[in-house]
Parts: sequence; structure tokens; C-alpha cells
Amino acid sequence: MPVIDSPSFFIGKGGGNLISFGSGQPDLAPPEEAFAKLNNYREFKYGPVRGLAALCEALVPTYPDSKPEQFVITNGASEAIDLVLRALYVPNGRILLPRPYYYSYPHNVRLAHLTPDYYDLADGKIVLEELKKKLPGARAILINSPANPTGTVQSPELLKEIERLAEELDIYIITDNVYRELVYVGEFYQMGGPKTITIDSFSKTYGMCGYRVGYAHSYDQKIIDQVVEIKTHTSMNTNILAQEMALAALKSPRDYIDEHSRIWRERRDMIYEGMKKLGLDLWQPEGAFYVFPKITNSNQAVNELYFKYNIITYDGNWFGAPNRVRFSYALDVEKIKIGLERLAEFLKNRK
Amino acid sequence: MPVIDSPSFFIGKGGGNLISFGSGQPDLAPPEEAFAKLNNYREFKYGPVRGLAALCEALVPTYPDSKPEQFVITNGASEAIDLVLRALYVPNGRILLPRPYYYSYPHNVRLAHLTPDYYDLADGKIVLEELKKKLPGARAILINSPANPTGTVQSPELLKEIERLAEELDIYIITDNVYRELVYVGEFYQMGGPKTITIDSFSKTYGMCGYRVGYAHSYDQKIIDQVVEIKTHTSMNTNILAQEMALAALKSPRDYIDEHSRIWRERRDMIYEGMKKLGLDLWQPEGAFYVFPKITNSNQAVNELYFKYNIITYDGNWFGAPNRVRFSYALDVEKIKIGLERLAEFLKNRK
Repeated sequence: MPVIDSPSFFIGKGGGNLISFGSGQPDLAPPEEAFAKLNNYREFKYGPVRGLAALCEALVPTYPDSKPEQFVITNGASEAIDLVLRALYVPNGRILLPRPYYYSYPHNVRLAHLTPDYYDLADGKIVLEELKKKLPGARAILINSPANPTGTVQSPELLKEIERLAEELDIYIITDNVYRELVYVGEFYQMGGPKTITIDSFSKTYGMCGYRVGYAHSYDQKIIDQVVEIKTHTSMNTNILAQEMALAALKSPRDYIDEHSRIWRERRDMIYEGMKKLGLDLWQPEGAFYVFPKITNSNQAVNELYFKYNIITYDGNWFGAPNRVRFSYALDVEKIKIGLERLAEFLKNRK
Repeated sequence: MPVIDSPSFFIGKGGGNLISFGSGQPDLAPPEEAFAKLNNYREFKYGPVRGLAALCEALVPTYPDSKPEQFVITNGASEAIDLVLRALYVPNGRILLPRPYYYSYPHNVRLAHLTPDYYDLADGKIVLEELKKKLPGARAILINSPANPTGTVQSPELLKEIERLAEELDIYIITDNVYRELVYVGEFYQMGGPKTITIDSFSKTYGMCGYRVGYAHSYDQKIIDQVVEIKTHTSMNTNILAQEMALAALKSPRDYIDEHSRIWRERRDMIYEGMKKLGLDLWQPEGAFYVFPKITNSNQAVNELYFKYNIITYDGNWFGAPNRVRFSYALDVEKIKIGLERLAEFLKNRK
């Protein structure tokens, strides 16, 4: 049997009889207000590298006492993370990542010539004592809540304590908030502080993955200016039309997000309950759109699920969590149901 | 007088009574076929990181015996250069750049943790003997013809000799061909060879700067796969809609390019003749859309031209060429005329 060794294997695969629990992208379209921007759009020149002024201004209210120039609009959260890490480069700089982690994080750190280090989560939760041992001397700590792949949300109290510690130790916080609008249990807490760098995106909240619009924000103007300086040479402005679409999405009625939350919650309940019935060991997702059950020999499982049962799933090893498998539930309930039936077959035959 | 110390100073400045010979971007709109793609477009999901299959396939005929998977579509030529250099990273790797250079090149090299080294051009032309001394042991040599900021085109014979030398010495060639369709004198030669990496863009040829679509091609599949691997983590797919627009532009009738060539040539003649009449020392542009006259004390000149004469120009120091000033002629002949009058005033008062 061929070995599937990274998410790239699945790129471009889908459709037909295949059920994909793979890629983490909404199947729900962006608000119509975003598409309305396409009508008769005729701009074509470079935009400011920092981003469209109107979009930066529209983001200000989300960040207390912020200013438009504290934002930089990027090619998705991916580029924001890449540029921020490059801006934070120092020789032998150590970046603390959660484990399990979003699979790109360690690559991002190494591509910025920094060194990844890890703080292990317990059932997806940060263990403060563990973290405290790792913090001193780190260049930055990355926080992801709600999290990919664990689906967990960290408590505001804990995140405030990390803010306090980071400030005391003079360490940057990079907080990846792309799932901030997808919380089912608990509460999203937006970290602040003078050395906090926030990463966010229009991809998950507004179903705009393919358009690649994200941003970084920090009250530390120096780091944002450094990001803009790097971006000037490495990609220039983010697509001008995509930024207009993002702005229109941001200004669209809040109903869009609320209605989507309801849909995501329904899917979450179905897949979580379904997996519990199958006897799988998993925690209930509090946010984002992933479940992360224990499945032994996860690489073999992912291969078999794909080649024998026509289901795409992601191996926990890619996220630093062997013997778990990630299922994205960014697909409609009918498909989730069929997928669960196939998973049941797989589990039955495996015993 | 304030000191203007980089092109960033001018970003967002323009309009009104200001004449901008600054940013190198066409003022001519993309083909209508590109904008037609906006009508009723409703896609929103991630695309393949490598790029839309149809766009990669459409580029194949331009590269003899190439394959679609030898291309990767990027956020403009800027990202292509950034990713290629990151893929070429080796400790202490040395990258040979022309001098004068496009101002981002040395930044790109350093941002990839490589070391820039320079081969000096004589009146914009490569001096083979000079280059030969620098080549051995370099990781890659960057070629830019037609060139920014010099406006020169290197001869096919010379470029073939460099191909031969690079192959003999096992050195990568990075050839930045974004001005390939803008040649007035001589002939564009497309470098090939097993370790040549071509950078190109839709920005200049099709007036699509703001949409950020470029690409890298190489017959060396390993290097392209490495670029795709990096891009998977640092920006994912290039904007899906912009790629559709690029594809439509590529397929639009050739008249678009021919008609534009005529316009560029007219502007070139006007600015070159005008500057000769003013007694400036410059060479006649063979390609691209820049003139690069000698003007002593160029930083002071750029400041004075902006603050006293309402003209944006770029200091030669930013391109590694002190005592020269770059004028982009990407603006209509009426404006070029006014700009030349102001320049005449400046020169008269300076004497």
C-alpha cells in the first residue's frame, strides 16, 4: 500500500464518491456583499504594501485603542505568520509552539531560520506549569485558540496569565485567531499586550480561503513596520480586489456569521456524537471545525481509509500527535453521515 | 530638507499636480478579457498551491519541451524570487546580482539568508570577463534582461555564453524576464538549460500589477517542487480569481501587446530625446520602461525634484548606482512633456 506522508497528497483530490474530512476549509460561500464587489471592478494598479487604507481602518474597532497603521494585510494568515516570524528573526531564536500543532507551524519557524520548541497540550489544553519551564529565553510563544487540530479553546484566565508572564519575560506572543468566530463552548479571549502580534484571516470566518486575505496586527509598531518592509520585497500588496471583497465581507450583516455558527454546531454535534457511538476516544470540540480522535497506527489508518473506504482524513503525525486522526467537519451533514458509516466499517473490519 | 531614503516614501503619493516618474507600473489597463472573468465568478475554495492546472498548461508552449508541473504560480514575480531564493538556500550561499540592480534583489537575497555579491555592468551591459571572475563557487547568478533600472537588453550570444559557463560550473541561473515583451532594440533571449529558473509576471505585460500574479519555471523539477513545498506553508495558492484573469489575459489576442509596444516606444522616444536635449548623459533604453540618466548628488536631486518641482523620481543609490536617477516612463506623453519641462527648470536653477 502506498504511504500518504503529508496533506499535499490530497490536494486536488475530491468529488465523486469520495468523502473528504481533509482540508480545513468552509464549504459555505462568502457573503454576497463580497461577490458584489466584482461587478464592474476595473482597478489594476499596485496598492499600498500595508494594505488598503479602508480595510485597515475597518479593523480598528476590533482592537481597543489601535490605529490603522498597526495592521498589515497579507496573503492569508499563512503569509502573516511567515512574515512575522521573519521579522522576529534573531540568531538562535527559539519559538514555542503548541503540540499538537497546525502542521505548517514548525515549517514556518524553520523557514524563518528559527528553532521550533514545543509545549505539550493535555487533551488539547495548555498546562501552565509545563509552559512556564519553556518560556524563559524564548523569542516568542505561539498561541492558537480555538485550535487546529485539537478543536479546543483555552480559558481567558489562562491566556491572561500567559500575557502577564510574556510581558514579565519580555517575550513576543503570536496569537493565531483565525477560528475566533467559531466557538461552541467557553469564550474566545483576544490577547493584548505590548508585544502581542495577532494573526487573523477572512478565510474561515467568511469562506474566502481561495482569495487569500489575512492580516497581522500589533501595538508594537516596529514589528509591523518590519513586516511591511519585508513584504515590500517578497510579495508587495495583497491582491487589491480580494481586499475589497474582504472589506465588504467585514461590513456585511452579522447574521452571516450567526447563521454559519448554527450550521457548524449542528455538524459538530453529529460527528462528535457519531464517533462516541463508534466507541472512539475523543474530546468534544469547543471551537474550530475539527475532531481529533485516538486511532492507533494512524498513518496506516489514513492510508486504509483513503484507499479502501474512500475517505480523506489527516494523520495525527502531521500535527505532532501520533495515534490520532484529524477529521475536518467542513462538509454537509449528509456527507458526514456517509463518512461515519464508512468509518464504522473500517473500525469493525480492523478489530 | 527631509531626506527621502527609499521608494516606500512615495507609496500612495500621486495625483493632483504631481508628475510621477516613480513606480514602475503600466498605466494601461489589462485586456478586457481579464476583467470579463469577474462576471458572475463564484468560486471561493483553496486552489492547488502549484497554481491552476489550466494556467500552468497555457504556459507550456512558451518553454520548449516543458511540462505543466514545472511551473508554480506566485504572488507576482516578487514572491517567485523570494521562494526560489529560499529554495536555493545553502549555508554561506552566494548569489550574484547585476549592479545596478532592481532595488529589491539584495533584500531578497538577505531575507533568504544568502549573501549578495555583484557583477558590475558597464553602461548597463554585462562584462563577461568581470563576470567570469565572480562565477566560480556562486550558488546562483541572477540575470535581468530587459533590465530595471538600466533599460538595457543583453545580447543572445552573451546570454548563451553565460548559460554554457553556468552549466559547466554547475551554478543555478535565475532569469527575471518580467520585461520580456518590452524590447525596442535588439532581441529578447529566453535562457534555458537544466539549472535555469525563469521568473515572469503578468504585471508588466498585461497591466495587472495590483492582482499579483507571476510564476517560476524550471526544467529542474526538484527546485520547483521545493518552491511548492515552501509556498504550502508561507502563502498557499495564489488568489484563484487573479489566476483566472491571468489565464484570460494570456489567451487574449496578441494585438494587445503589439498596440502597447507602440505606445511604450513613443514614450521612450519622447523622454530619451527630451533628456538628450537637456544635455543629460544617458543611454538609449533598449527595453522595459526606464531611463537612468547621470545626475550628480542624486539623493539631493530626488528630494529637490519632489519638494520643489513636484516630480517623483527614484534615487540611483537605491539601485546601487550613485549619481544616477531613475525615471519610469509609465505615464502618458502629455505628462512626460510637463515632467521634462520641470526637469529643465531644475537643471537650469541647479547650475
